[in-house]
Amino acid sequence: MPRTAHLDATFAALADPTRRAILARLALGEATVNQLTEPFSISQPAISRHLKVLEEAGLISRGRDAQRRPCRIVGDPLADVSAWLENYRRFWEARYERLDALLAEMQTPPRKSRRRVSKAAKQRAHAKKGRGS
Amino acid sequence: MPRTAHLDATFAALADPTRRAILARLALGEATVNQLTEPFSISQPAISRHLKVLEEAGLISRGRDAQRRPCRIVGDPLADVSAWLENYRRFWEARYERLDALLAEMQTPPRKSRRRVSKAAKQRAHAKKGRGS
Repeated sequence: MPRTAHLDATFAALADPTRRAILARLALGEATVNQLTEPFSISQPAISRHLKVLEEAGLISRGRDAQRRPCRIVGDPLADVSAWLENYRRFWEARYERLDALLAEMQTPPRKSRRRVSKAAKQRAHAKKGRGS
Repeated sequence: MPRTAHLDATFAALADPTRRAILARLALGEATVNQLTEPFSISQPAISRHLKVLEEAGLISRGRDAQRRPCRIVGDPLADVSAWLENYRRFWEARYERLDALLAEMQTPPRKSRRRVSKAAKQRAHAKKGRGS
C-alpha cells in the first residue's frame, strides 16, 4: 500500500508545530535554511532535521544550488491528504453547519430584546420631541 | 496555542494505517470494540490502544453503555485539518491542474494519427463508392 505508507509519513511530518510553521513560511515563497532558522528560537541543526523530515515526506523539495539549497513546498502529499479528507466530508462539514446555525441564530435578535430596543427607541423619540417643542 | 496542540494530536493520530482503517470502518456507522477487532489481524488490546489514541485526539467518542461502549466519529478535528489545508490549496490544486492538462492531452489525438484516420475514412468512402457504382 504505497499510498497509505505515504499518508503515514505525511501525517507524521505534519504532527509537529515547528514543521507546520516552516510550511507556513514557505507558503510565502522559497527560503534557505538560514532564512528559515531566523524566526525560530531553535538551532539551525534542529531546523535542518525538521527539513529532512519534511523532505522525506515529499512535502518540500530543495534547490540544487549547493550553497543555498532553497526549500519550497511540494503540494502532492497535501493533495493526498485532501483526497483522504474528502471521504469524511459529511463529518467535518457538520461542524460548519452547526456554526452556520449558531450565526443565523445570533443575527436574528430574540423577540424580547427586539421589544426592548423598540421601547428605548420610542423613549429617545419622545425625548427628542420634548426638546423640539 | 490550543488549536495548534490539537492539530499535533490529530495529525499524530492519523499517521497510523490501522487508526485510519478504524475511521474508515466507523464512517459506515458506529461500532463496538469487538466489531472493530474482527476485520483486523491484531489483538483486541492493540485495537483498544488505537481507540484510546483516537479518543484522546477527539476523533472518536464512545457511548456510555458500559458493556458495548460503541465508537463513532467526531468530525471537529477533521474540520480543523480541512481549515489548515485550505491555507495550502494553491499548492495541492496544482497537482489536479496537471492531471487535468494530462487528461485533456490524452483526449485530443495527435495530428498525425488524426490524418491517418482521415485517410482511412477516405479509403472506406472510396471503396463504398466503388461498390455502389
